[in-house]
Amino acid sequence: MKKLINSPQDVVAESLAGFAAAHTDLVRVHTNPNYIVRADAPVAGKVGIVSGGGSGHEPLHGGFVGRGMLDAACPGEIFTSPTPDQMQAATQAVDGGAGVLHIVKNYTGDVMNFEMGAELCEAEGLDVQAVVIDDDVAVKDSLYTAGRRGVGLTVLAEKLCGAAAERGDDLSQVAALCRRIDRQGRSMGMALTSCTVPAAGRPTFDIADADMEIGIGIHGEPGRGRLAVKSAHEVVEMMAAEIISDLPFNRGDRVIAMVNGMGATPLIELYIVYNELARRCHSEGIHIERQLVGNYITSLDMAGCSITLLKIEPDWLDLWDAPVHTAGLRWGV
Amino acid sequence: MKKLINSPQDVVAESLAGFAAAHTDLVRVHTNPNYIVRADAPVAGKVGIVSGGGSGHEPLHGGFVGRGMLDAACPGEIFTSPTPDQMQAATQAVDGGAGVLHIVKNYTGDVMNFEMGAELCEAEGLDVQAVVIDDDVAVKDSLYTAGRRGVGLTVLAEKLCGAAAERGDDLSQVAALCRRIDRQGRSMGMALTSCTVPAAGRPTFDIADADMEIGIGIHGEPGRGRLAVKSAHEVVEMMAAEIISDLPFNRGDRVIAMVNGMGATPLIELYIVYNELARRCHSEGIHIERQLVGNYITSLDMAGCSITLLKIEPDWLDLWDAPVHTAGLRWGV
Repeated sequence: MKKLINSPQDVVAESLAGFAAAHTDLVRVHTNPNYIVRADAPVAGKVGIVSGGGSGHEPLHGGFVGRGMLDAACPGEIFTSPTPDQMQAATQAVDGGAGVLHIVKNYTGDVMNFEMGAELCEAEGLDVQAVVIDDDVAVKDSLYTAGRRGVGLTVLAEKLCGAAAERGDDLSQVAALCRRIDRQGRSMGMALTSCTVPAAGRPTFDIADADMEIGIGIHGEPGRGRLAVKSAHEVVEMMAAEIISDLPFNRGDRVIAMVNGMGATPLIELYIVYNELARRCHSEGIHIERQLVGNYITSLDMAGCSITLLKIEPDWLDLWDAPVHTAGLRWGV
Repeated sequence: MKKLINSPQDVVAESLAGFAAAHTDLVRVHTNPNYIVRADAPVAGKVGIVSGGGSGHEPLHGGFVGRGMLDAACPGEIFTSPTPDQMQAATQAVDGGAGVLHIVKNYTGDVMNFEMGAELCEAEGLDVQAVVIDDDVAVKDSLYTAGRRGVGLTVLAEKLCGAAAERGDDLSQVAALCRRIDRQGRSMGMALTSCTVPAAGRPTFDIADADMEIGIGIHGEPGRGRLAVKSAHEVVEMMAAEIISDLPFNRGDRVIAMVNGMGATPLIELYIVYNELARRCHSEGIHIERQLVGNYITSLDMAGCSITLLKIEPDWLDLWDAPVHTAGLRWGV
């Protein structure tokens, strides 16, 4: 295992310390329990938004804490759900009197621990709603998940809901928006290589030099299966076909598209993938209105990519274009 | 070789096509000869800034074309200098009547071809100045370079000079600023793995599972030598010591710091590296005023990182904080 770390057990703590040192203008990092919170939290009268999950997917979620996106993020250990006390503390820290939305990726541990965290907060009189994101069309159930996994759409949901909260939508409105986003977004991923969890010290799975895994999960959990490595064109055709037919996306639909790198795939390749995706969408009559190309929800040092399409409603572009100031996504400010 | 590509010879062209499709609001991509130019170029009365070099270092340089940074970038084939006709065409395209600055990383081919491009433009009456960036303290001469290589400081030079041009500095002022930046910035890199050039199909160099290369160049060219893999703390101590003693940086200096990923190193590790760098700078009495942590000047799929420190002058923070709108760096707009 080759990694720029000190010791496997200190990876999350030391990375959080570096994150705190780099972004003092944006966030505060609390330890015991660990959570990252907007420097100006709580924002009075604004719905707070909290997300979280296992570490190893950076910039998700901590990199999306800041004005116009998340109020707090709860990082677990690598690929391990955060604990209810983290969600409780983060929720309390961001409650500005308008309630708090939990955006939860659909993994059994995350869902359970967010529920317990919410119950602890509700017992204290806080108003909490949760929306579970489950956008991965690859498999029905998976190693850590009942139902579909929550993957790339989470990034778009955090941006759009963050903007809605910032403009003053109330908790039920922001939660309803998040549910609509979950219904209208689909993703699929693939891997050329495994990832290596520092504490494990060896690749999560074995994969032959000539093979790829299609439908991979963001923890390296199995997808649809192994195939010989295909061209970028063939990879995108396969994934786009699944995504488009699943919703289904139809001619005339307007979408936000994301081509996401899994961590070890260079940007020059991600733009080749985007080129293929843009052509495919064009041929289907699907209009890409906005896009992200880069590393947004990663799997440590995995090589590969995922594609997300979100069918947008009329006012969602305003939410997308609204100012955002986080370590991982920034514009307008 | 596992890559998300179609064929090795089409990597640059297809990636540029994807880049053009993704960033129609920001840039135009011209082919034959290849260059990326601000969508609103030329900007009348503003000094134009052109950079370029081999592809494979994305987001450098094309990802830094836009308001407040570069007016154009000339991408060569992978790790191959662009040709003089690219620089000629790009320079002509961005000349708004106030002359054009070429920011050139110190590689023999780049320097020669930028010089030839400048001569072609001067023969047509254009006012062109060039500044060569040579910030890498690792080695004196290298595989592609006489003198020190140009690496991470290029990103900071493009940002600061772009802001100076945007506020109305004239060509001699912007060029003088760029030369001061080059004098006051130092970098060093390291690699845990090699990179693989698509056309070569195999790793640029061999490296044992237990080894790292310290002082690596951005094309995988040799650095100081091989060592057993060290902890992040030891890696940063080694590189920071070389960087700090070279200028030298002194107690009380204010700096912009960059921790740059080589392409395949996850963000969670880069923040561990930043944590170590921040501690070291603090112990030396060096004040980090601004920082970048992420992939800014990469080496395809190489795992590793580089560190850059730039000693700043009083008005440079204003230039740093000035609005920038590019694919790879954006704030204030």
